[in-house]
Amino acid sequence: MHDILLHNDTFARIADQLKTHEAAIRPVTLDEAGVFTAQWGTALDGDPEPVAAFGNVDVFFGGQAPLFMTTLLKTPRLAWFQSSAAGIEHPALVAMGQKAEVYTTSHAQAESMAEWAIWAAMDFLRRGPERRADQDAQQWQRRMSREICHSRWVIYGFGAIGAAVGRRVKALGGHVTGVRRSAGASEHADIIVKPDAMAGALGAADVVLLCAPHTAETEGLANAAFFKAMRSDGLLMNLGRGALVDEAALVTALDAGDLAFAALDVVSEEPLPEGNLLWTHPKVMLTPHDSAMTEPTRHRQDQVFLDNLDLWLAGQPLNNVAPKSAFEPG
Amino acid sequence: MHDILLHNDTFARIADQLKTHEAAIRPVTLDEAGVFTAQWGTALDGDPEPVAAFGNVDVFFGGQAPLFMTTLLKTPRLAWFQSSAAGIEHPALVAMGQKAEVYTTSHAQAESMAEWAIWAAMDFLRRGPERRADQDAQQWQRRMSREICHSRWVIYGFGAIGAAVGRRVKALGGHVTGVRRSAGASEHADIIVKPDAMAGALGAADVVLLCAPHTAETEGLANAAFFKAMRSDGLLMNLGRGALVDEAALVTALDAGDLAFAALDVVSEEPLPEGNLLWTHPKVMLTPHDSAMTEPTRHRQDQVFLDNLDLWLAGQPLNNVAPKSAFEPG
Repeated sequence: MHDILLHNDTFARIADQLKTHEAAIRPVTLDEAGVFTAQWGTALDGDPEPVAAFGNVDVFFGGQAPLFMTTLLKTPRLAWFQSSAAGIEHPALVAMGQKAEVYTTSHAQAESMAEWAIWAAMDFLRRGPERRADQDAQQWQRRMSREICHSRWVIYGFGAIGAAVGRRVKALGGHVTGVRRSAGASEHADIIVKPDAMAGALGAADVVLLCAPHTAETEGLANAAFFKAMRSDGLLMNLGRGALVDEAALVTALDAGDLAFAALDVVSEEPLPEGNLLWTHPKVMLTPHDSAMTEPTRHRQDQVFLDNLDLWLAGQPLNNVAPKSAFEPG
Repeated sequence: MHDILLHNDTFARIADQLKTHEAAIRPVTLDEAGVFTAQWGTALDGDPEPVAAFGNVDVFFGGQAPLFMTTLLKTPRLAWFQSSAAGIEHPALVAMGQKAEVYTTSHAQAESMAEWAIWAAMDFLRRGPERRADQDAQQWQRRMSREICHSRWVIYGFGAIGAAVGRRVKALGGHVTGVRRSAGASEHADIIVKPDAMAGALGAADVVLLCAPHTAETEGLANAAFFKAMRSDGLLMNLGRGALVDEAALVTALDAGDLAFAALDVVSEEPLPEGNLLWTHPKVMLTPHDSAMTEPTRHRQDQVFLDNLDLWLAGQPLNNVAPKSAFEPG
């Protein structure tokens, strides 16, 4: 019998599916009051000692994330940790990756994040800020819009999220240049180029989207030279990590007209401190790192966990395993 | 030699293509100063007497539309009038339809209008107004968004524009109910229903889009009962004509919470008068009947004219002919 730790809101959603494994597992839930409960009529005998866990947004965005994590770090053996996040660089997740024998990620948020990109790009191409100012001024002012079906995109980082965006942009008629280290075509891009060949594409792009993880290679990649290489009527979007963008250089470049607008779901310091220029810059749209937050994302994340649970109990290799080396001190 | 009247901005764009018909036609252009010019080194002998004309946005939104139209009404014989508009109910177009032997419409604006619908719906589903208020307040407030890939749409009027929207919604994963009088399936809708079967679909729709022409049947179709049949978290959009919506009932329904939001590219009186409640209502997004206005639309409209010009000179039937009966006094 394997004790598996998860948030009690998550358990409430997937109790029926978990019940099919009743002979093999015992769900141990943590609620927002900090109380652990062994489900299905059993009782905990002392501290919970789970051998597996599902860490998702119910946990990460709830108030008991520290208790959830410390419980896992103290458990005698953590055979498997399923994260609902694609990224693994948060210190708590690094600790989990070092503790767990197997650590699996999730790309279930890619669909919602891709919709964020379509939204933010359409609002730029249709001139949302000017139109809202016109409405505020009660001014019937016809304006030319740009079309996504004639737009060219550069998507830096062409993993699950980049491909999910590329698929939508192509379906809407746009042209996609995907940037990633590994060569080879993708059905969701018109062309795939390596990072060192990106500069040329920037000058042709209506929209430049960053959706790479934060690594030594990507830190500060969107800097002054990057912005100067963009079109003056181009849009920069960031769905990756705030550290990919040199924010001081971004403000300077927006003010100089090197690019037209920036839409950011991630910033270098989160929450963004009050008074930071990005809050009030007229050429910046901000969302609070919640592009993945939809009900369907939550259900897709549950499904990733449930699918891996089937595999784990069957002794099969899991999906989306992060290599142990990814959690070694750099 | 056929004299063909068009705006001089239009001529500047398509002079090369027209030149291929140099032996058969003579372009006569009208500029914004009100000056007529016969092109290709010829001179006008008295008033212009065109036998064909291309009336597009350069004309309609320019300052010389009245002179353009009265010239056509006075010409001895108007064999063909190509409009860049889909609608034919404007009084000047009705007069043109009565005068011209053949009147052709255009659906070239459907693509841009469909992109407007995707933009407005995404801004609603991603909670744009609340997010912009959060940014204004420098408030890092995570919010759940809705996904277009799990959205259900009712599209009233499933002609060129409705189908262009349906194609995009389906490509993005949504479910489309198209409403039109003629039966039969469409590849751009999951289901096509007749108007009298629409009421049931309204209650399931995240998004209801009107894109029908103004007729006796459609006038005021979006009334109090219509809004009560909608979901309280539903969006109404109008790309058709303002007269389709009972605007007083809309404001009442928005205030009562019968529906959540309205995005309108057309209103009953255009330009919308200063002080009209729709300008300032927090649950209304307005654009000034310019959803079609993009550079690519202009080029697609030019192409519709050029394709029909080929057919006309070859004595073939033209595309998009409006029946003469459509212009008879109702």
